[in-house]
Amino acid sequence: MGQTLTEKILSDHLVEGDLTPGEEIGIEIDQVLMQDTTGTMVWLQFEALDLDEAQTELAAQYCDHQTFQFDFKNTDDHRFLRSAAGTYGAHFSRPGNGICHNVHKENFAAPGKTLLGSDSHTPTPGGLGQLAIGAGGLDIAVAMGGGAYYVEMPEVVNVRLEGELPEWSSAKDIILEMLRRLSVKGGVGKVFEYTGPGAKSLSVPERTTITNMGTELGATSSIFETDEKTKDYLERQGRGDVYTELTADDDAEYADEIVIDLSEIEPLIACPSMPDKVVPVREVAGEKVEQVLVGSCTNGGYEDVLPVAKMVEGREVAKHLELIVAPGSKQAGEILARQGWTAEMMAAGVNVSEATCGPCIGIGHVPASDSVSLRTFNRNFEGRSGIEDDNVYLCSPEVAAAAGLKGEIIDPRDLADELGDLDAPGVELPKKYDGSKSDLIYAEEAIDDELIKGPNIGDVPLKDPLGSNIAGETLLKMEDNITTDHIIPATSDILKFRSNIERLSDFTLSRVDETFAQRAKEAGTGVLVAGENYGQGSSREHAAMCPMYLGIETVLAQSFARIHKANLFNFGIVPLAIDEETYAKIDQGDTVEIVDDVADAVASGQVEFTIRVNDDWEATAELNASERERNILAAGGKLPLTKQQAEGGAAPADD
Amino acid sequence: MGQTLTEKILSDHLVEGDLTPGEEIGIEIDQVLMQDTTGTMVWLQFEALDLDEAQTELAAQYCDHQTFQFDFKNTDDHRFLRSAAGTYGAHFSRPGNGICHNVHKENFAAPGKTLLGSDSHTPTPGGLGQLAIGAGGLDIAVAMGGGAYYVEMPEVVNVRLEGELPEWSSAKDIILEMLRRLSVKGGVGKVFEYTGPGAKSLSVPERTTITNMGTELGATSSIFETDEKTKDYLERQGRGDVYTELTADDDAEYADEIVIDLSEIEPLIACPSMPDKVVPVREVAGEKVEQVLVGSCTNGGYEDVLPVAKMVEGREVAKHLELIVAPGSKQAGEILARQGWTAEMMAAGVNVSEATCGPCIGIGHVPASDSVSLRTFNRNFEGRSGIEDDNVYLCSPEVAAAAGLKGEIIDPRDLADELGDLDAPGVELPKKYDGSKSDLIYAEEAIDDELIKGPNIGDVPLKDPLGSNIAGETLLKMEDNITTDHIIPATSDILKFRSNIERLSDFTLSRVDETFAQRAKEAGTGVLVAGENYGQGSSREHAAMCPMYLGIETVLAQSFARIHKANLFNFGIVPLAIDEETYAKIDQGDTVEIVDDVADAVASGQVEFTIRVNDDWEATAELNASERERNILAAGGKLPLTKQQAEGGAAPADD
Repeated sequence: MGQTLTEKILSDHLVEGDLTPGEEIGIEIDQVLMQDTTGTMVWLQFEALDLDEAQTELAAQYCDHQTFQFDFKNTDDHRFLRSAAGTYGAHFSRPGNGICHNVHKENFAAPGKTLLGSDSHTPTPGGLGQLAIGAGGLDIAVAMGGGAYYVEMPEVVNVRLEGELPEWSSAKDIILEMLRRLSVKGGVGKVFEYTGPGAKSLSVPERTTITNMGTELGATSSIFETDEKTKDYLERQGRGDVYTELTADDDAEYADEIVIDLSEIEPLIACPSMPDKVVPVREVAGEKVEQVLVGSCTNGGYEDVLPVAKMVEGREVAKHLELIVAPGSKQAGEILARQGWTAEMMAAGVNVSEATCGPCIGIGHVPASDSVSLRTFNRNFEGRSGIEDDNVYLCSPEVAAAAGLKGEIIDPRDLADELGDLDAPGVELPKKYDGSKSDLIYAEEAIDDELIKGPNIGDVPLKDPLGSNIAGETLLKMEDNITTDHIIPATSDILKFRSNIERLSDFTLSRVDETFAQRAKEAGTGVLVAGENYGQGSSREHAAMCPMYLGIETVLAQSFARIHKANLFNFGIVPLAIDEETYAKIDQGDTVEIVDDVADAVASGQVEFTIRVNDDWEATAELNASERERNILAAGGKLPLTKQQAEGGAAPADD
Repeated sequence: MGQTLTEKILSDHLVEGDLTPGEEIGIEIDQVLMQDTTGTMVWLQFEALDLDEAQTELAAQYCDHQTFQFDFKNTDDHRFLRSAAGTYGAHFSRPGNGICHNVHKENFAAPGKTLLGSDSHTPTPGGLGQLAIGAGGLDIAVAMGGGAYYVEMPEVVNVRLEGELPEWSSAKDIILEMLRRLSVKGGVGKVFEYTGPGAKSLSVPERTTITNMGTELGATSSIFETDEKTKDYLERQGRGDVYTELTADDDAEYADEIVIDLSEIEPLIACPSMPDKVVPVREVAGEKVEQVLVGSCTNGGYEDVLPVAKMVEGREVAKHLELIVAPGSKQAGEILARQGWTAEMMAAGVNVSEATCGPCIGIGHVPASDSVSLRTFNRNFEGRSGIEDDNVYLCSPEVAAAAGLKGEIIDPRDLADELGDLDAPGVELPKKYDGSKSDLIYAEEAIDDELIKGPNIGDVPLKDPLGSNIAGETLLKMEDNITTDHIIPATSDILKFRSNIERLSDFTLSRVDETFAQRAKEAGTGVLVAGENYGQGSSREHAAMCPMYLGIETVLAQSFARIHKANLFNFGIVPLAIDEETYAKIDQGDTVEIVDDVADAVASGQVEFTIRVNDDWEATAELNASERERNILAAGGKLPLTKQQAEGGAAPADD
């Protein structure tokens, strides 16, 4: 039987398990990447492992979220990250050099290699045939220590693209169509492999827009086969040597197939406040817009900003709104500036900002109250923009520029009709991506050989090994689709404590209930209850670390988002699946006790646990965990386990 | 007897008093400007005056401090300001369009006109012959209401510039030399009039660097005569029609004369943490630098960034530091981008940011802990950069770029020697300042006709009329040179409450004593005691409004900074001057009582007041106030007085 492209790359990197969907496999990681808000914790954990050097082929540290440096803690974090990269042999990308995914794609991504990143949009370079997966920071630290990365073998789904995109439709509309069809849960446990003539018609930047935002489907990853377009792109980046041809076998067997006829794709838009609330732009036309943001790891490339520049050239942004362009990388920004597009955008009334991803998570350019913000970004979870009750729409650069000119949501085809002289901008690659590399400090040119820690950079918290008894009050009962933004908000006033767990934990679940952290501290321990898809969103491990720090020992949920579930294991919190009936029956304030001897049951492989509520009624909860995950739980988390193993003489990070 | 240029302009605008230094005069205001952090309060006050339209020839509202909009409150403020400008007939400059002083200079400044601005660096267009004065927001509101502006007639000092600047020396070094000679108190009660062949040798942008930073001398204003260079500059800005020749009479009599031989000016630098701690750059050479910031209203023009761009072109910024350029205006940014300089700076490793003045007051790009930051800005008060114990140096763009390349402080002449191929960049004006006007909403094109207030935009607090008794605990005893940054910090976490006095007042004097606001609230009233030069720094009226809101009724200080003293009157706080002995004798916690019937004494013109301390000893304190100021105090502040007058049928804002 032939293999899918995903299976081929996984086979090449397999160190444990076999490629049966749903079974856990261990794979070797070639490359890791970190960004600034997750990176500090990765390096503190790596420091705790007491190794001399990152063991992966390549490690790269980026500074992209906190580039505005609103607080000295941000600037201190950046300096710490530079010192850590230098000390441990990683490349370092200076603040202002761009978003990790963009800069990695430009400089280091390579077809056929595995990439693990402490950011949920790590799958971006799937667009050039790299198998890239987002993970918690601890997984990154362990991978840098030479350990395998463990993940459930995903189902591989063939997304067959037929035809070609019409004018004014874009790659963003393809991934929005996927979200429309499959929802934010539709990709859980899956890798989407994009094939067919439509896939071949797309440029690498278009492909990476799709693989990037595959994360919003909940997918483990997304990937395209490589071809002449991949080779050509890499050559324009001056890296033709890393090209390798990678295709699925003709007789590859996919778990499922989705067919999209690109010629039928029209401009789409995701309405507030979920990326899968997708409708044709025309359905919401006329909505007044006060802010338009262009950029992000999804649509911040040269090829994404260029259509905006072309559309606004010689025109004026509507007076009542602000159109802000934050290029995804300085390479993009530099080429746009060199070609004159930056000046044209400025002339039209665009505010051209630093290369940053900050505004995507509420760091800068927070919308006004009771206003509509249109963004080329990938997420519009409520409050993520930095203000509660926000109204954030997600769309393509073309739709964003059209709204910027019109002042309200409008299908760019209708705007073109209205204006008469507005041509579809199309997508062009520059002849050569000739931006400078002056903001990269390569590992071999490192200027630091010891860690520089500012006063806000704290210690890594460690949990005790799992005990026999777990019992506590249900401190919070939550709905479906609680995101990591709910658990640990990423706005700048909170994000600056990312390297200081004691302080950060005060904000745990504050977006759901402001009293939670205080109540948890007073209780000393407790239980969380949630509906479906608990922990969706980013890979931030702080969303597990902070509840752990507050004494939470178990989360009972109808289902868990993949990365967050791994993070719960990694920080020693027992994730138990409950059914709808049990969920409905438990109330906030109820006392929940796990009847079993937890340490024994976890160690012995027991799946069904009995929970006893208010000493009154019982229900069954399931622990779906591999032996490896059970070992982690038993030790109190992955870091305690890894340290135990290191002290016991085992390979330090090979759990 | 001939007149100085300052006297000529004042004569033309005089509505009350005569031009005797130290006497109060009332002058007509032609133009007003507001920025975003002071502007909201100006418009709320203007709203309270219940007028239809700004009465000045021109009013302009800029958004420049909070352009990163890291909180929805900033964005709401910007929207409110746009709506207020539209409603009341002011021009509006969108966030991202640049710093008020730069954009005003480019678009509206006019020789011979008076300009009042709610920002302490308002004197900037003195460089093209405008008499421009910084004031509290309430003064601006009243001026917009058609009322005169009252100020002590300053002494006019002739600063005679001889010779020409050598290579590598710049206008910034001239004003640093002034600060070195005169100190931050050396300009109090004065206007500096720059004359002589050296003045004629300077371009308008060079002149405005000097007039801008004259504020750091404590000067009321600074001004240059107009000449062919002024005309040429205005023509390049497309505004040759506003040119008028303005010179002092040959037999003008100045209060004092200062002579500076420009040919002897070498690169200078202000050391932490006061703008007058000026030494030659060579004296501090070798100090390692982690951050270099280029921009601000002092050195953010095209002509200021261009030397930096030329110096870094084809080179690389030192790896361990960050060099950030935030152009002072989008006009500057657009021309630099169009000429290719933006791309060159990016290639060299410069982070090119939005047009903003934020970082100057700790809004963005806060330095790392325990690090040196070199800035082309105008102030380096301790903590102003956003971190306590900062190490901020102030210098010219050339010195900043040299440090950016070398990684440490170095005289650019020595760097040129070291590199061999580094030429002095010189200053060139662009042929035409042809940036677009798309970010300006002219009053006649207004898109708003009613105020849009977000939830953080509160009411204007009003004080009761002055009573007979003032007595209370000395809640805080402070040193000399307490700045408005000490009284109300301008960092972004605090600045966002500028439109919400109730909330903002919690931060009053927190930089001096964190417990102050709470103690003041508990006490209900109280007294502040300070040394010399109390309230130096910015024009922010919140530094008077918040103490007033907390119940402070009098400040006893050895001396007061000019703008802040006016703000104290405006908000009904009695500023009493005490001598050194009295200052030394009062301790924090002492009870201070004004023995006189305060309301009567203030109304009757009494200068000497008796204070009784701890019911134990007495001393004399002086109220140096004009009749007008006494009327304001008696009414409880300027807004209550203006309202009283309006209700009594008097001209609403003509107090």
